[in-house]
Amino acid sequence: MAVQGTRRPTLAGVAERAGVSLKTASRVLNGEPNVAEATRERVREAATALGFRRNAVAADLARGGASRLLGFISGDIANPFYSALASGIERVARDNDLQLITTSCDEDPERERLLTEELLERRVGGLVVTPTTGDHARLAGELAAGTPVVFVDRPASGLEADTVVIDNRGGIRAAVRHLSYHGHRKIAFVGDNPEVWTFRERRAAFLDVMDELGNRDAQRWVRSGAHDAREARSLVAGLLDGPEPPTAVLAENNRVTAGALRALADVAGGERIALVGFDDFDLADLLGVTVVSYDAVEMGRRAAELATSRYDPATPPRTVTLETRLIPRGTGERRL
Amino acid sequence: MAVQGTRRPTLAGVAERAGVSLKTASRVLNGEPNVAEATRERVREAATALGFRRNAVAADLARGGASRLLGFISGDIANPFYSALASGIERVARDNDLQLITTSCDEDPERERLLTEELLERRVGGLVVTPTTGDHARLAGELAAGTPVVFVDRPASGLEADTVVIDNRGGIRAAVRHLSYHGHRKIAFVGDNPEVWTFRERRAAFLDVMDELGNRDAQRWVRSGAHDAREARSLVAGLLDGPEPPTAVLAENNRVTAGALRALADVAGGERIALVGFDDFDLADLLGVTVVSYDAVEMGRRAAELATSRYDPATPPRTVTLETRLIPRGTGERRL
Repeated sequence: MAVQGTRRPTLAGVAERAGVSLKTASRVLNGEPNVAEATRERVREAATALGFRRNAVAADLARGGASRLLGFISGDIANPFYSALASGIERVARDNDLQLITTSCDEDPERERLLTEELLERRVGGLVVTPTTGDHARLAGELAAGTPVVFVDRPASGLEADTVVIDNRGGIRAAVRHLSYHGHRKIAFVGDNPEVWTFRERRAAFLDVMDELGNRDAQRWVRSGAHDAREARSLVAGLLDGPEPPTAVLAENNRVTAGALRALADVAGGERIALVGFDDFDLADLLGVTVVSYDAVEMGRRAAELATSRYDPATPPRTVTLETRLIPRGTGERRL
Repeated sequence: MAVQGTRRPTLAGVAERAGVSLKTASRVLNGEPNVAEATRERVREAATALGFRRNAVAADLARGGASRLLGFISGDIANPFYSALASGIERVARDNDLQLITTSCDEDPERERLLTEELLERRVGGLVVTPTTGDHARLAGELAAGTPVVFVDRPASGLEADTVVIDNRGGIRAAVRHLSYHGHRKIAFVGDNPEVWTFRERRAAFLDVMDELGNRDAQRWVRSGAHDAREARSLVAGLLDGPEPPTAVLAENNRVTAGALRALADVAGGERIALVGFDDFDLADLLGVTVVSYDAVEMGRRAAELATSRYDPATPPRTVTLETRLIPRGTGERRL
């Protein structure tokens, strides 16, 4: 990256071009009164001609506290789930006249730590984080100092803080009961990273309901490690090709659902295997995919509201839990 | 937004807690040499306990030039096209040890202007913009001063600057010829905002090829104003319900394609109407949708490379044009 410091126009350059003192140029550009209109005009013209801009970095520093920035650390900038979160956060940021900075840590705890440091060093006025599996105790000092840090989609580890999540267990319970109602007992649960809180919540609910339904050994129907649709397709294909193929698949998230759809399209009789996906997605209606849905834009909005509301480290942390809803569209209603 | 300046720990607080002078505390936290290890340790412990962080805003200012920020102004944070662009830009930012700031202007020229000002005032080291219909001549001074501003997806108006676009005309030509090859003459072109450069390029190519194919009055097959899938669905439904329904639809972008798919699913015989969509999208393969595809991640990557490479205002602006590719999957091969 070329640092352009040497070429960048200075206040002195503007003053010189306008034929005024440095102090007068500064007064005009900072909007201070008691400068003749003609002088004002000359300074503004000189500033425009030279491409001079007042320094927002210096202005932030002069304010001495938080900047007009709201930070968002997402898991993966290319996943539409995070786009929906970001869009909810941005609406609140805009309403509060804040500039949203979005960054992504790719689910890497070390990168999440570095990005958090970087944003806090930039004195963001608030921070929304989708936490990875790393420990967050290191942020206790920051919270105590009064910077609102809000966790979204998953709670932090080793730290009590404001959190917005969805009712993962309720969503999975509804999905398994729905499949069971349509006659399925051999239900596979296919997911991403077993270290992530949402996976653990969803798997726990899956095992609970399966147990209630009399399937006490459901752990053998659990598969993990499907980080993208390609890996999910291969895991589902493996299950269908195995000694005891499932008659229904419960996909832990939108990427797994996409992979499962492809795996079902690949095998003979795949159109008879039931599928429920966690996370709604674009065009799921046209594909007839039954999903567990929730409002990701609203999730982002609620998180941003917590991150921009007056924050008092002395009050106990708040947790907002949003409801999920099963939307039957076809794949989940395939009877055994 | 609560400004937390009063509660934030100061360097003086750290020095007091560690029992050292302000100067010593500053030396330790700025990583300067010649401080005893035991003192160093005490200062670090005090800083951690108090949640003190060195001030990145001040550090940027001390550098006196560009910050370690790369800015990206997208059209719509929730559209997967912009997520793909952002993901390409982020890879390059990461390779250059820059922090990507992503913001969105919702295709509003005034908002784009404000965001550009805001990011430039923050002394971003480079800026990637998907320009709206507004005039960009105001950025000439900025470019002359050496800040790399790169336009992606569309060129700027009234300004010569580095630009990354795709071969819109080539993509549309391929789509219309493909539909024509399969027997279609009544081809409708449905798009978003007719003021936007990409729309104008795509429509111009559509009218050209239709003319070459002997259809001299193709303007009557053009519809615009479909900003989202819902509006696109309604426009396509109107065409199909009109006095001379088209036998094929060319959708200008991914949202229009989604709306067109829904409109075709709504009408009797919709499965016989051909459809080619501009922009590939997730699961288009499973839906069997023929698209004009290109690499949006690569577009972002190329734009970010221009925005982070050494920039010399004296050299002529560069334009990178990426190829498109027609992917036949079913909807575009429906014969008349």
